[in-house]
Amino acid sequence: MLLLQNFALGEWAEGLGPKTDLIHAVTGEKIGETSSHGLDFKAMLQYARRVGGPSLRAYTFHQRALILKRIAIALMERKEEFYPLSYMTGATRADSWVDIEGGIATFFAYASRGRREFTNERFHVEGPTEPLSKNGTFVGRHILVPMEGAAVHINAFNFPVWGMLEKLAPALLAGVPCIVKPSTTGSHLTHAVFKAILETGELPKGALQLICGEARTLLEHVEEQDIVAFTGSAATGQKLKSSPSIMQHSVRFNMEADSLNCSILGPDAVPGTEEFDLFIKEVTREMTTKAGQKCTAIRRTIVPAGLEEAVIEALSKRLASTSIGDPTVEGVRMGPLASRGQRTSVASSAEAIRAAAERVYGGGDFAVVGADREKGAFFAPELLYCADPLTRLEPHDIEAFGPVNTIMPYRDLSEAVQLARMGRGSLVGSLITHDPKVAQEVILGAACYHGRMLVLDRTSAKESTGHGSPLPNLVHGGPGRAGGGEEMGGARGVTHYLQRVALQGSPSMITAITREWTKGAEEHTDPVHPFRKTFDELAVGDTLITKSRTITLDDVEAFAKLSGDTFYAHMNDEEARSNGVFEGRVAHGYFIVSAAAGLFVDPDLGPVLANYGLEKLRFTKPVYPGDTIHVRLTVKQKTAKDTPEGTIPQGVVEWDVEVMNQLNEAVAVYSILTLVRRSLTAAPIAPQAA
Amino acid sequence: MLLLQNFALGEWAEGLGPKTDLIHAVTGEKIGETSSHGLDFKAMLQYARRVGGPSLRAYTFHQRALILKRIAIALMERKEEFYPLSYMTGATRADSWVDIEGGIATFFAYASRGRREFTNERFHVEGPTEPLSKNGTFVGRHILVPMEGAAVHINAFNFPVWGMLEKLAPALLAGVPCIVKPSTTGSHLTHAVFKAILETGELPKGALQLICGEARTLLEHVEEQDIVAFTGSAATGQKLKSSPSIMQHSVRFNMEADSLNCSILGPDAVPGTEEFDLFIKEVTREMTTKAGQKCTAIRRTIVPAGLEEAVIEALSKRLASTSIGDPTVEGVRMGPLASRGQRTSVASSAEAIRAAAERVYGGGDFAVVGADREKGAFFAPELLYCADPLTRLEPHDIEAFGPVNTIMPYRDLSEAVQLARMGRGSLVGSLITHDPKVAQEVILGAACYHGRMLVLDRTSAKESTGHGSPLPNLVHGGPGRAGGGEEMGGARGVTHYLQRVALQGSPSMITAITREWTKGAEEHTDPVHPFRKTFDELAVGDTLITKSRTITLDDVEAFAKLSGDTFYAHMNDEEARSNGVFEGRVAHGYFIVSAAAGLFVDPDLGPVLANYGLEKLRFTKPVYPGDTIHVRLTVKQKTAKDTPEGTIPQGVVEWDVEVMNQLNEAVAVYSILTLVRRSLTAAPIAPQAA
Repeated sequence: MLLLQNFALGEWAEGLGPKTDLIHAVTGEKIGETSSHGLDFKAMLQYARRVGGPSLRAYTFHQRALILKRIAIALMERKEEFYPLSYMTGATRADSWVDIEGGIATFFAYASRGRREFTNERFHVEGPTEPLSKNGTFVGRHILVPMEGAAVHINAFNFPVWGMLEKLAPALLAGVPCIVKPSTTGSHLTHAVFKAILETGELPKGALQLICGEARTLLEHVEEQDIVAFTGSAATGQKLKSSPSIMQHSVRFNMEADSLNCSILGPDAVPGTEEFDLFIKEVTREMTTKAGQKCTAIRRTIVPAGLEEAVIEALSKRLASTSIGDPTVEGVRMGPLASRGQRTSVASSAEAIRAAAERVYGGGDFAVVGADREKGAFFAPELLYCADPLTRLEPHDIEAFGPVNTIMPYRDLSEAVQLARMGRGSLVGSLITHDPKVAQEVILGAACYHGRMLVLDRTSAKESTGHGSPLPNLVHGGPGRAGGGEEMGGARGVTHYLQRVALQGSPSMITAITREWTKGAEEHTDPVHPFRKTFDELAVGDTLITKSRTITLDDVEAFAKLSGDTFYAHMNDEEARSNGVFEGRVAHGYFIVSAAAGLFVDPDLGPVLANYGLEKLRFTKPVYPGDTIHVRLTVKQKTAKDTPEGTIPQGVVEWDVEVMNQLNEAVAVYSILTLVRRSLTAAPIAPQAA
Repeated sequence: MLLLQNFALGEWAEGLGPKTDLIHAVTGEKIGETSSHGLDFKAMLQYARRVGGPSLRAYTFHQRALILKRIAIALMERKEEFYPLSYMTGATRADSWVDIEGGIATFFAYASRGRREFTNERFHVEGPTEPLSKNGTFVGRHILVPMEGAAVHINAFNFPVWGMLEKLAPALLAGVPCIVKPSTTGSHLTHAVFKAILETGELPKGALQLICGEARTLLEHVEEQDIVAFTGSAATGQKLKSSPSIMQHSVRFNMEADSLNCSILGPDAVPGTEEFDLFIKEVTREMTTKAGQKCTAIRRTIVPAGLEEAVIEALSKRLASTSIGDPTVEGVRMGPLASRGQRTSVASSAEAIRAAAERVYGGGDFAVVGADREKGAFFAPELLYCADPLTRLEPHDIEAFGPVNTIMPYRDLSEAVQLARMGRGSLVGSLITHDPKVAQEVILGAACYHGRMLVLDRTSAKESTGHGSPLPNLVHGGPGRAGGGEEMGGARGVTHYLQRVALQGSPSMITAITREWTKGAEEHTDPVHPFRKTFDELAVGDTLITKSRTITLDDVEAFAKLSGDTFYAHMNDEEARSNGVFEGRVAHGYFIVSAAAGLFVDPDLGPVLANYGLEKLRFTKPVYPGDTIHVRLTVKQKTAKDTPEGTIPQGVVEWDVEVMNQLNEAVAVYSILTLVRRSLTAAPIAPQAA
């Protein structure tokens, strides 16, 4: 018998007092029990804030990203341990793959985005410098810093692994310690993965805690720097969100509530088209994956009037061929619900919807392979049909959190949009069409009620990840009924754990705080050319002012000849003047940038390895033959990189470049990205506390 | 006698039943009355949603930005009408300038950012394309669409004009109709400016409504697409935020609560330094501007232990020279509080703080110029001193919303940071120092408790906008006690009124919906070169595939000579190989970009006027002598511009450029920005519904 422990204050802790049973979804047998009684929730929150937070914040964003990567690798190596535990929740292999490997994938995704999209510092610099004054002595800049509280993650029963990992990845990347509270149903699986994470030894003390039993009074102790992220039913979410402690301290509360998501069949996708078949497959898959227990599952199927019968027939046929039973048995495509309690709840919700809809598939006896239908939480798919969906609210409002789906007809696209919106806020909506005009009208018409919208057609079908799958690089969440929250979406999901702060001051002060050079800040010139310095020797603000070069008409002619660019504005005085932009023949912009490199490059072999990119180039004034240019080149930002074995240790140096004319007016501004060798004596970059 | 009407359902409407008195803050006389009784709040919200929303959303972001600009110009022309009304609230000319002209400035700021930072469509495309599949047939993209509800703006009494305009600007730019609910105190001024906005005739019917009386049951009727933005006391904000309708429909609720903002004197800023004098000026100004009735005012003054006396002396001297009285009288620097009720409240809060602090300035009799001290809501500045601020919570917790400030000593920087954080969340904190190291430690230490932090020193002082001024380009809001909200911050503030939607589909579908070309979408080639087409003739997706050019060693030599760029990787085979990046001498990246232009440019005089910029250039593979390159040039996005009189009507065309080698591998990817002439027959661009 499994006695699931909690992980609190850095130790495994058995709950005291009354226990909650853990039940095998397939056999109905008790597999273990757990309890959170006796845990000191207030102390756990303090432990996260005082022990976990400071240690996590001692790492930079890139270092935390590398921790995520190593944890993801370790979990992938142990993944087969988790599948048997997942089957006990009723999940098939395919269901479990989404949960387990999909969950681990969020760690990989954030490991990669963390290094690509965040500053390699203990804070992140966001957006451009904001000019706040005429002479530039006073400027603004936004930074994002980790919140210094604890993240409380309250997860739903349907994805014991993914549910935990998709919330942990952005929080840990942000540097915020987490308390994971999975649903007790399925918590044996969460527990196993949580334990495996701990066993990697990658995370500092206090970064993670786990409550397997009930959450009880946990939220009474949250404070202004804590963050609560909730996934579950709208009713529970609303209750928690309005807790006095959350209100009083303005605690951030992110809610994902399951919603009445719809899928719309485009009028072009008639039977016989590839899209019609895709639609039938997608709807069936969404009904039966996880036995329909996904907050993103299709609950409402909106089809052109006249196609109802064809859709019902095709869906019924496909559903009939879906084998239900013990997920460990070969050929079984749909397991039981997560618990018998869920079965009762789904059945009663389906009945409530049937006040407005007739059942056109399911409802009778059904075969269960390899398990006892009554002992396990089995529930067969039900297809309902609502003939008057514009006037009946039940199918738009009552959620049966299982394989239950209501088909509803629309007469024209505006009606389809109206029906989609009647869900009053959904996590996702999909449209199956090959007609871009249909897509424009339906998607833009229904967008404000959705967090994600999928257009599926023959072109994307093969690679589509499907209606029901939230992805780490896209936002997950929806307005209204769906809870009004937002998770993931790449870097966006990390900002929920960060405080945005607007900094104001002189360019030198802003440079000192952000460690990114701000125009107007002090420039350090040095007799040593910056191209002669290693990554470690270069300092933000190091500046080279080049000598000058006069651009001649011969240069322009020669450049036109060499590049082949004989655009009239460079070649013909009168034509150049005619376009309202120039006063005569103008030097090529690309020539100015090339000549600028000619001025600032120190050519000899040295630490600079390559120029691999250029950003935000603006030609701010024309350069005419006879003008004399010079360049200011300043180290804007340095980003240390972890370099693979066998390559030269290096970092990225971003340089701010300003090309000026003889009047000291900027003619071109941009930044360039170079790879610069590290000092031979530099310590290898490894995630370690500073 | 003024009888303030409400503006509801497109008409001026007098409130019925009991009225609320409007009182002159200086004389204590009744100047008018108002009431919101009889208004049908539910109908007002529906009117906004059904009449105002669709009309506003018919405009593009740029068109709405131009509407803001024209309104701002019209208000500036009428500004002198508003000052006399402002004096009645107790505001001086300087106070009123912040309120009136500062408010109008937010309209100008959003007018300008709206056109610079948003897509010129009815939706905004956010961030890059997200690759979701190996072969690129399935991609993601985020768009932001206007919420289709009403924005309810609940404003505080202290800034009757700015409070309204800073909320209206982002909401209207987003395309969301607004219901303005000013504090009844001062509503005669809000009313006048509101009326002036209506009189511009710029806004469509239903875009704006006004409730001058109490809000009463207004929030009971909000729904899932509505947005509530509140500024005021934390207690009221928390009560409103937890309203059942807001919880039930997950209504977005943004709260700005006044907070216990601090200003810290750096240890370097001792008496005799410029920074010490700046500090004294700043603290005095923050205490007396608007008679301290600013949610951003300095309430806690944190100074190095040992400097308390010097600070108290200097502040007292400066406060003593601040003349209090009727703001219309020459020389008066501080007016009364907004009402006698406020005076009672401030006095009682100051008294409560005095349980932990002694009064070191103020509290006795004081002179009032040109007004009766008792009839008007006059309250003289009070300076308190708390000797043990680490253990006493009163000065960190109790807010006297007037000219009251507690001085507290710190022993070292970590203690200064700790004191700053004891406010448990502030809108703003400031630090006066000339030492970048002090700035780094204090700012990064206290950042997570602040929405904005200012570093003031001799360099920035002349142009600094000061501790207390929120600015449209910086976020305004703070965590915890400050309400956990965020307003303005440029484009960020607009997103509070937009729904973010993740789109998924084939590149062609995403292109069709976003009207921005997505790599992998269908390309349209045409015998007519795209440089021969006007802005109006070009279509997103129009593509040119150029002929090829083989890059020779002679080219590299010639380019090195012409540009002057003789970097070793281009000139010396062995050295190039040595750096781990290249396999031998490599062509200059700038030459590849130049030669690409040579391949895609159609040189003859035509609609293309200029190339003014280049974005996101990456050199993805080296080009070696002998390689053969060609280019794909595709219209990525078109942005119509309003062109000033007398210039050639034009638009911005962004082109996606991919330079490929003989193996069809990308060697350089980037986009370029060009100005392209419009068709002579094209209609002038004017903000108008589609």
